[in-house]
Amino acid sequence: MLQSKIFSKTLKNAPSDEKSQNAILLIRAGFIDKLSAGIYSYLPLGLKVIKKIENIIREEMEKIGAQEILMPALHSKENWEKTGRWGIKEMFKVEDKYGLGWTHEEIITPLMKNFINNVSKLNDLAVYQIQTKFRNEPRAKSGILRTKEFIMKDLYSFHCEGSDSLENYYEKIKNVYWDIFERLKIKEKTYLTLASGGSFSKESHEFQTVTPAGEDLIYVCENCGAAINEEIKGNHNECPRCGEKRFKEEKAIEVGNIFQLHRKYSEVFGLVDSDGKPIEMGCYGMGVSRVMGAIAEIHNDEKGLIWPTSVAPFVFHILALDSSEEIKKSAQKIYNELSLIKKEALFDDRENKSAGEKLVDSDLLGIPYKIIVSKRNMEKGVVEIKDRQKGTVKFLKPMELNKFYKSKICLKNY
Amino acid sequence: MLQSKIFSKTLKNAPSDEKSQNAILLIRAGFIDKLSAGIYSYLPLGLKVIKKIENIIREEMEKIGAQEILMPALHSKENWEKTGRWGIKEMFKVEDKYGLGWTHEEIITPLMKNFINNVSKLNDLAVYQIQTKFRNEPRAKSGILRTKEFIMKDLYSFHCEGSDSLENYYEKIKNVYWDIFERLKIKEKTYLTLASGGSFSKESHEFQTVTPAGEDLIYVCENCGAAINEEIKGNHNECPRCGEKRFKEEKAIEVGNIFQLHRKYSEVFGLVDSDGKPIEMGCYGMGVSRVMGAIAEIHNDEKGLIWPTSVAPFVFHILALDSSEEIKKSAQKIYNELSLIKKEALFDDRENKSAGEKLVDSDLLGIPYKIIVSKRNMEKGVVEIKDRQKGTVKFLKPMELNKFYKSKICLKNY
Repeated sequence: MLQSKIFSKTLKNAPSDEKSQNAILLIRAGFIDKLSAGIYSYLPLGLKVIKKIENIIREEMEKIGAQEILMPALHSKENWEKTGRWGIKEMFKVEDKYGLGWTHEEIITPLMKNFINNVSKLNDLAVYQIQTKFRNEPRAKSGILRTKEFIMKDLYSFHCEGSDSLENYYEKIKNVYWDIFERLKIKEKTYLTLASGGSFSKESHEFQTVTPAGEDLIYVCENCGAAINEEIKGNHNECPRCGEKRFKEEKAIEVGNIFQLHRKYSEVFGLVDSDGKPIEMGCYGMGVSRVMGAIAEIHNDEKGLIWPTSVAPFVFHILALDSSEEIKKSAQKIYNELSLIKKEALFDDRENKSAGEKLVDSDLLGIPYKIIVSKRNMEKGVVEIKDRQKGTVKFLKPMELNKFYKSKICLKNY
Repeated sequence: MLQSKIFSKTLKNAPSDEKSQNAILLIRAGFIDKLSAGIYSYLPLGLKVIKKIENIIREEMEKIGAQEILMPALHSKENWEKTGRWGIKEMFKVEDKYGLGWTHEEIITPLMKNFINNVSKLNDLAVYQIQTKFRNEPRAKSGILRTKEFIMKDLYSFHCEGSDSLENYYEKIKNVYWDIFERLKIKEKTYLTLASGGSFSKESHEFQTVTPAGEDLIYVCENCGAAINEEIKGNHNECPRCGEKRFKEEKAIEVGNIFQLHRKYSEVFGLVDSDGKPIEMGCYGMGVSRVMGAIAEIHNDEKGLIWPTSVAPFVFHILALDSSEEIKKSAQKIYNELSLIKKEALFDDRENKSAGEKLVDSDLLGIPYKIIVSKRNMEKGVVEIKDRQKGTVKFLKPMELNKFYKSKICLKNY
């Protein structure tokens, strides 16, 4: 994409009321725009990141055979009255007749009655959606980590007694989540954390990513790395996994939360197996926009964002450092070559920006590899490749570029 | 995909309160599920259709350089008070503080101030989103044609005086819409219709698809095919394009609506060019879920749905007509071959269904090409290909299949 055409603009300053690092960086780099407290728009660069995160999640969901559906955000009041959750104050109420969904047990459970009521076998039936959710957050102050409207993946699983069990599936999903967080490059700082079950179940597991921006407090076992959320720390003097008593206190962001719902919702809505027993259910959430915020919190430096290649809006940032015809042509040629592979290149072709401004903007945007075309390099017959994360520089001859591109992107997507 | 695994089920009957053809067929075929009046979930097959429609729209938007963004559904009341549209009763109000977006002028115009205020040139800058919208429809009774929550593409264009004009861009979008409707296979029954501008502008153009299910009444010029919406027919005795006075009255579905907003919103929010003049704006809507409903209304017969290849959930439906090992193996082989090309095949591998039931279900689902593997055909060394739309049958030898597949799908997507 040509940077001169892209609808985006880097800003010197974020709005003064933004205190969180992710919001400041994402707004300054032109990835998001703030409408009002806790409500943001995703601009072209930001939406590209969101879509890459969504696609990683979709690929991992597909691997375990979970099927994608799309449920509404506008929910009938009566379903929520049946489960006793209509009163929850975080739920936005629409003209006292509807609620805006912040989770979907009240929708998926009766929906499933049309399809699996009275079955005797289910074989890990699971459906998921990636959908916009709403939550009345009185103190939305952490950028896209905690918003009134957010994008979430929610997966629901269904199990008959004696068949593949909820417990086994729950363990399977833990592994899938680790695979996803590895691809999103937040695994290293993420801890499986025992937490309260909220209005869902007795206890649950959260995936908590440690960063000073986190609003949760977790206690990480100094021996085995299992963690406990502050909210239930009082119930656990010892690490539930290894028995150790020494913990390290950390601030963290909840990027995923998984629950064994058991029969809680199937009982209310009468979703039963062939023996008339309520079907066992599990639910597994992951915040798409929150994950984007967590990545921005973790992967940055004083110059700006540093996107992991897997979710970067573009993998390559071609900079034509001056606007002489020769440089422009040479940079354009590189851009044309990359366009053949796919749209993974942003080309800074802006004519009214200095070399310095372009380099500063590029650091702020955080695209993994700069491909710098300058007069000095051209005279030597090379282009400069700069790694945004490592800061390393190498010089490649034009004929070596193709091999370099291919080493940096996953070709199966092209 | 294996039909035995897919989360979907054909139903003998739709809910008795559904009167519209699209809802009856889509529910019976397991594409959608009704939550309550005007609120539906999209099941795996239905979501596949939605995504194909969205991708066609995205490709056409990309061709004209429109850039995708994603704006929130939850809107601050103050923006809508500024334009005097807070009182519109179709807008769902959330706790009297927010409104749920049914259009986005109140969001995109102030957003643009951060990026293009005081510019002197814009070069057809246009941004769009494909997003969930909400509208308080008191009489939601036409299935997914008119719902309280729906998916819509909305495009907004911005123009400086003297540069590429709003009028030119408006004409360009008409052509893009025709290209989209051609690919969606509803162009033939769709008429460009002069209509009121509602709360947007003086007049507008609608794209109206003629079908008995339509809730709008349009008058189609018997000479040139231009149309006028009933709501403004009183102002036009003559066809605005050719002057003819004879019209044919038709029921139709509004699948698209385009508006020249001019300075209406830029003036309110102070979005101005370098001379301080309000920037000219256009907006261009297209209902994604409504288009799906329109396709279902137009492309069906007494046996069920008949999807155009471009939006069908799958292009090929492999039916193993009995469950002998030999037939199953042979059908499985065809399925494996197709899986290599891509996931365009549904394989009816269900063991508890008769040949008759499988054929009836296949007609209801409306997948374009049945590939029928039966004992009789196998003895002759052929498979039967049945065209769902034309009803024609042909027999192919296994070695001819590959060529057939390739002739039916657009390989650039694979």
